[in-house]
Amino acid sequence: MFTNAFIKKVANKECVSVKFLTEQLKAGKAVITANNRREVKKPCAIGKGFKVKINTNIGVSTASPDLNTELQKLHVAVKAGADTVMDLSVGDNLNNVRRKIIAASDVPVGTVPMYQIVSEVERRKGDLTKITFDDIYDALECQAKDGVDFFTLHAGILQNTVKKIAKNKRTGGIVSRGGAVLTRWIHVNKQENPIYANFDKILQLCKEYNITISLGDALRPGAIADSTDFAQTSELKVLGQLVLRCRKQGVQAMVEGPGHIRLDQIAYNMKLQQKLCHGAPFYVLGPLPTDIAAGYDHITGAIGGAIAAMNGANFLCVVTPAEHLRHPSIEDIKNGTMASKIAAHSVDVLRFKDEWDRDAKLSLYRSRRDWNNQYKMLLDEEKAREYRKSKDASKDVCSMCGDYCALKIVEKCNFLK
Amino acid sequence: MFTNAFIKKVANKECVSVKFLTEQLKAGKAVITANNRREVKKPCAIGKGFKVKINTNIGVSTASPDLNTELQKLHVAVKAGADTVMDLSVGDNLNNVRRKIIAASDVPVGTVPMYQIVSEVERRKGDLTKITFDDIYDALECQAKDGVDFFTLHAGILQNTVKKIAKNKRTGGIVSRGGAVLTRWIHVNKQENPIYANFDKILQLCKEYNITISLGDALRPGAIADSTDFAQTSELKVLGQLVLRCRKQGVQAMVEGPGHIRLDQIAYNMKLQQKLCHGAPFYVLGPLPTDIAAGYDHITGAIGGAIAAMNGANFLCVVTPAEHLRHPSIEDIKNGTMASKIAAHSVDVLRFKDEWDRDAKLSLYRSRRDWNNQYKMLLDEEKAREYRKSKDASKDVCSMCGDYCALKIVEKCNFLK
Repeated sequence: MFTNAFIKKVANKECVSVKFLTEQLKAGKAVITANNRREVKKPCAIGKGFKVKINTNIGVSTASPDLNTELQKLHVAVKAGADTVMDLSVGDNLNNVRRKIIAASDVPVGTVPMYQIVSEVERRKGDLTKITFDDIYDALECQAKDGVDFFTLHAGILQNTVKKIAKNKRTGGIVSRGGAVLTRWIHVNKQENPIYANFDKILQLCKEYNITISLGDALRPGAIADSTDFAQTSELKVLGQLVLRCRKQGVQAMVEGPGHIRLDQIAYNMKLQQKLCHGAPFYVLGPLPTDIAAGYDHITGAIGGAIAAMNGANFLCVVTPAEHLRHPSIEDIKNGTMASKIAAHSVDVLRFKDEWDRDAKLSLYRSRRDWNNQYKMLLDEEKAREYRKSKDASKDVCSMCGDYCALKIVEKCNFLK
Repeated sequence: MFTNAFIKKVANKECVSVKFLTEQLKAGKAVITANNRREVKKPCAIGKGFKVKINTNIGVSTASPDLNTELQKLHVAVKAGADTVMDLSVGDNLNNVRRKIIAASDVPVGTVPMYQIVSEVERRKGDLTKITFDDIYDALECQAKDGVDFFTLHAGILQNTVKKIAKNKRTGGIVSRGGAVLTRWIHVNKQENPIYANFDKILQLCKEYNITISLGDALRPGAIADSTDFAQTSELKVLGQLVLRCRKQGVQAMVEGPGHIRLDQIAYNMKLQQKLCHGAPFYVLGPLPTDIAAGYDHITGAIGGAIAAMNGANFLCVVTPAEHLRHPSIEDIKNGTMASKIAAHSVDVLRFKDEWDRDAKLSLYRSRRDWNNQYKMLLDEEKAREYRKSKDASKDVCSMCGDYCALKIVEKCNFLK
């Protein structure tokens, strides 16, 4: 699947042995999202035993079609710590947008191919329920050739489940875009999910290009009242079966998860996924432990993400402050990515010596009021410099306490390491 | 201690019975911070069985002496959800600042009287190690008469502990301002902490004015490398003894806690406090599970605060994005307060029906794309309206997905409650 040189490069970056990385890949407990038609400059391993990774979603929308803005978001996200990006564009000229994003990206690029499929079918046939499997396959193949590293495929939502949702009604409805399209398709056509029905053919394609399948959660809860409900867990069981089918065909797989989950069920959800999905890497969106914080859902997501990562999630999808409200701005992308990075790092610091040492070094510099060295250890050196510029860049204390700085008051007491 | 009418008012506000509130107060498991010399318009109960409360620190500093800015912060904080504020002013004219803040505040006001003491002694004697107990008592009495509702008193840092810190050196040093002053005082004077040595006299004063003592943690870790270390736990044991002395004298008491704590020790720290401090309410600053996120420590604090509240913390002190960098701006105060509010609400939603119903209502409105009703349920209606104003205030979808809105795609499937 990968050359020895590539595996060695990723193992070095991840601070693990080649042996460990190889074993985790073989067991399907980790993935390296890397299409074999191109060389990703900054590849990474996602899964158990590796640092928690974060993904930032970018992409044009019908209301915000400017490609340059999205390319700026790409760079801002990677600078803020995104390990991967997903191009979630909808609208026109999607091939061009995707190719430009892939060409500009040093990190792996994922997509939800259904967004392209629905955009094109709506244009051509005027009705998304007229999507055929050929439409789906053509888009997958086109994106595979372009070098997409991982696909979110909502293969786990079945006809049988859709029938039952009407009897197990929800507070938050269906909030996955790709999932909504397939749900509607199944509901109207009264046929099985075409991605599920043709999964073997998709596996062949993904194997040929070494594309990682991210098994999407069409039925993730969109409200904490729907946490761990029938729809969510029914789909998760199917995703677990699909993980085994991917492994059998030598296709890398990870599983996507919620969503809006009440705080006291986040840890449980992580354990449930590990069990039902045979230890496949878990990629979560949030989770968000409250529904009422729109405008600040990067913070809600950081709370849920840290608890999820502590309990087994391997990959956090960035939630921006714009979530639930609008297409994110460049600043939203930065703030969202930083929030997820804090969540991921809060867990990594407990598991990786280099991460722990970074915090310890920062703290020693901080306690000595050595600002220049302190800045270099921070997640966002620029923001810290900007914050201090206003009043006290030239002082050894900050304007919060001024001369009443605790660290300064006790510096002669010799309590520091 | 309180009139029946007052207890009834607080019980109603807290959605508990008068009996429950009375019992928790009597057992010392909850406090109502309310000086008997004035009537707090919006009192609250802090402790086990009540909604998680949040406090926002305001106050002038030597570099930012403008009182009007601080009064604006007071209103912004209360609007964003602060249940109490603390006036942490240092510098000149502190009596005037405090009186103006108390007069303008509908919520309880706390202080760390040592800030006034050290500011005045530095001015009069030029050396903070020359503080006498008379200086301390005079300031406490002055603030008591002004109507301060709770005092943070660093009574738990003892001469014996200070001696030992030099042998158990720290990465982050001492980061409590009041704590640093007392540590230095003890270190130089080689005498017992004057607040501890004269605690009975202080108890008499607090009883007379019904001032709640918030037993400060002078030795809270300022780096995750110092989590749950000797200094922190030694002080916590003393605070537990002081809780019993407060209860014996009929003085309300709560206990302050960390600070910077590694993620996997936050829950343990909550349990430790409950045990060592006999179930007294726990007031935590953060906790921050990483040291390297300056500029975003409201987010770091929200992660730690939610986990702390889930495991027993009753009162969260707001951390703003300015923490570790500068005196906070009005915007910092808003963002910090909102982050703590999200942490508190994420836990309250699991314990209080009215909070749960708010999320459920919001989610129903959201799934129906009923924006006007949705706005009203949000923590920050204004920000949400502002976010949507740019592009799609007139549409029933948002600019993220546009016509590919998942909720809209499935609306005819009849899956909603």
